[in-house]
Amino acid sequence: MLEELKMQVYEANMELPRRGLITYTWGNVSGIDRSKGLLVIKPSGIEYDELRPEDMVVMDLEGNRVEGRYKPSSDTLTHIELYKAFESVGGIVHTHSPWATSWAQACRGIPCYGTTHADYYYGEIPCARSLTAEEIQEGYEKNTGLVILETFANRLPGHVPGVLCSNHGPFTWGKDAGEAVHNAVVLEEVAKMAYQTEQLKPGLQQAPQALQDKHFERKHGANAYYGQK
Amino acid sequence: MLEELKMQVYEANMELPRRGLITYTWGNVSGIDRSKGLLVIKPSGIEYDELRPEDMVVMDLEGNRVEGRYKPSSDTLTHIELYKAFESVGGIVHTHSPWATSWAQACRGIPCYGTTHADYYYGEIPCARSLTAEEIQEGYEKNTGLVILETFANRLPGHVPGVLCSNHGPFTWGKDAGEAVHNAVVLEEVAKMAYQTEQLKPGLQQAPQALQDKHFERKHGANAYYGQK
Amino acid sequence: MLEELKMQVYEANMELPRRGLITYTWGNVSGIDRSKGLLVIKPSGIEYDELRPEDMVVMDLEGNRVEGRYKPSSDTLTHIELYKAFESVGGIVHTHSPWATSWAQACRGIPCYGTTHADYYYGEIPCARSLTAEEIQEGYEKNTGLVILETFANRLPGHVPGVLCSNHGPFTWGKDAGEAVHNAVVLEEVAKMAYQTEQLKPGLQQAPQALQDKHFERKHGANAYYGQK
Amino acid sequence: MLEELKMQVYEANMELPRRGLITYTWGNVSGIDRSKGLLVIKPSGIEYDELRPEDMVVMDLEGNRVEGRYKPSSDTLTHIELYKAFESVGGIVHTHSPWATSWAQACRGIPCYGTTHADYYYGEIPCARSLTAEEIQEGYEKNTGLVILETFANRLPGHVPGVLCSNHGPFTWGKDAGEAVHNAVVLEEVAKMAYQTEQLKPGLQQAPQALQDKHFERKHGANAYYGQK
Repeated sequence: MLEELKMQVYEANMELPRRGLITYTWGNVSGIDRSKGLLVIKPSGIEYDELRPEDMVVMDLEGNRVEGRYKPSSDTLTHIELYKAFESVGGIVHTHSPWATSWAQACRGIPCYGTTHADYYYGEIPCARSLTAEEIQEGYEKNTGLVILETFANRLPGHVPGVLCSNHGPFTWGKDAGEAVHNAVVLEEVAKMAYQTEQLKPGLQQAPQALQDKHFERKHGANAYYGQK
Repeated sequence: MLEELKMQVYEANMELPRRGLITYTWGNVSGIDRSKGLLVIKPSGIEYDELRPEDMVVMDLEGNRVEGRYKPSSDTLTHIELYKAFESVGGIVHTHSPWATSWAQACRGIPCYGTTHADYYYGEIPCARSLTAEEIQEGYEKNTGLVILETFANRLPGHVPGVLCSNHGPFTWGKDAGEAVHNAVVLEEVAKMAYQTEQLKPGLQQAPQALQDKHFERKHGANAYYGQK
Repeated sequence: MLEELKMQVYEANMELPRRGLITYTWGNVSGIDRSKGLLVIKPSGIEYDELRPEDMVVMDLEGNRVEGRYKPSSDTLTHIELYKAFESVGGIVHTHSPWATSWAQACRGIPCYGTTHADYYYGEIPCARSLTAEEIQEGYEKNTGLVILETFANRLPGHVPGVLCSNHGPFTWGKDAGEAVHNAVVLEEVAKMAYQTEQLKPGLQQAPQALQDKHFERKHGANAYYGQK
Repeated sequence: MLEELKMQVYEANMELPRRGLITYTWGNVSGIDRSKGLLVIKPSGIEYDELRPEDMVVMDLEGNRVEGRYKPSSDTLTHIELYKAFESVGGIVHTHSPWATSWAQACRGIPCYGTTHADYYYGEIPCARSLTAEEIQEGYEKNTGLVILETFANRLPGHVPGVLCSNHGPFTWGKDAGEAVHNAVVLEEVAKMAYQTEQLKPGLQQAPQALQDKHFERKHGANAYYGQK
């Protein structure tokens, strides 16, 4: 079942090591079939060079395994919370990519210092608050999802397709698994450049709002003119 | 038409990912045929591994597409302003290469800290001022070109073959597309080393003027003796 | 003798350059056969691309060479002290991997800033105290081992599978040579991210204890649910 | 003539891009035949992928070209001064490798922070003083050599096989061209780690003298026991 989605999710997972976002098995990608209400996700802890499309695990939105011989990624319940709340999202990625994770470990959102950031993320890429000890003990992965949703109470997931989890790492998303990986690559590059920018000029302000608006609009607005659209 | 120039511009574009200056489609190279008053530029948003020489777009200096099935790079109007003002320039590059972009995001020019810099760029590599909100809204790409020209009011584009745009990234140029890419590679390397130099010695002065003069002259002066010239 | 262990130790050594942990011959991996009381270790100063499984040297725990035409790694006596004291350890790695070595050169342990660290190392990765001049002169390699053991007087080697030696570099270990290399790769990645984290937020505290507990337990505890166990 | 030495010097030059020490043509390696009083050096400004063994240039110690269709490296006169003064040296390398060059641009010697450094360089890797304007104008390359010799008035070139030139970059040497390249690779790695070490602990002291002595002696002393010697 869901063979095409499994292939998409498999390909998106395999893109993580190719793009240098992954050490060992430290990441996972999922994709959802909205019409069936089922998601496909990488199995937990399987090496990338042993992974095959048919190893992808099919889950429902209650967290039950519907198909697959492996256990799903240990972060599956986080993915599910995001899919339930973010209706436009078709794919989700979690990694420990080093630059984004460094910001997450510093418990800081990434300010928008330039057009590379503004081309994809509108405004700061936020860092979700730390979970309480109770939240961690009672349902760590589900609560990780809920604290992300709390962070997006006043944000549009389509305008800011990613988040940092305090002392943990990034999640990104997109209309499908491939776009979610694309946004993970962008986040890592943006995180690196924001770090370097701050070292060059401590106390710097974010990029002018008009510039942020222009770049986001030129790529994502109603009158977008970047690319061949 | 302009088949040879298209091939040159294509090859120069393909050098960007090989040299690590590019993530996804974040860059563009153009070249100009001065006798015909036409420039050739990369199409907007096409993946590098799908790009072919015949995909290059031919434009006139008024910004009209003369040939090509694709839309040109969204930065084409910036390139045009530079070609109109910098008569010795035959090729232009724009990237978001991470070290140069970090300086641009910090809104800082790159001081000349050593001979690697002085071999190619005479004095500081300047950072153009921020555009005003009006300049951004009324003609972002054209005004990006004009603010670069403003920055070069007292500089020779042949002595300083590149510039940073505030909160954006670098443009470099040269006698042809290949040399413009060469200067983009040099800029990235120089930007990296200047960053590291400042971390090692905050408050450092630029390299002695006599040393800057010597290295620039030995490579580019009337009595240059570097290489096989 | 010990052909299977030699092959394991050889493969683990060859993983060091593949993972970017090694320049030239700056590292060594060993493995132990507990039933025979013999360990197998890389010969000293042999280039990785000339190394063969049969070049591995067999040593006893008194430091005598039992088999092999080459001299063993100059750090063999350090490995031996660790094997004698850490009974659950089956493999040991020493490298000069640049990020971990930078922390060692700063004579600082690596604080636990996030889940990547907590997934493998429970709490700070300690830095052993400097050897005295007498300790260096009287038995440098053996005393390097002893000062590591001193550092682990109140730590479990299974919970913290690595250490930094002041002004020197890291040692890591595991149930076999392969796992010891795995932990060396993790240490290097964790060391890099901790460095970057501190630059982003000087004076930062370690990750919340509940989060550290959760991640270590989810991977290594009695009810571990990461992977396919 | 000197076919074997040409091949050695060619191979040593080709190792520079393989080891990541070189962008474009920013480096050169030479080797000397002491019995003939002739040195072999890379031609100036030739791309590495076009270089052939027979392109190497033969020079005498007065700076005359003895054989070769190309002009020698523009830094040849610096090499010559070093060969004349450092009698045990058989090969010399100059690069603009980014970490070592960053220290050179900061006009700082590299303190010995650990055993990786001490294994090859005994004590600080010094930075030569800046040339005066007169020295630059009257004989830049020769005076670059002389100021290095001035720096080594109280140092042994065999104990410290490299130097940084202020606002310029490193020179390293060894018993032959291959060892000189080896020392250039080590210098770059040591420069990187020393930078990172200082960021982790500002105001740090050098490694204990007894540790420096031990590591240098264990590899280079009369009773050296590293490797298969």
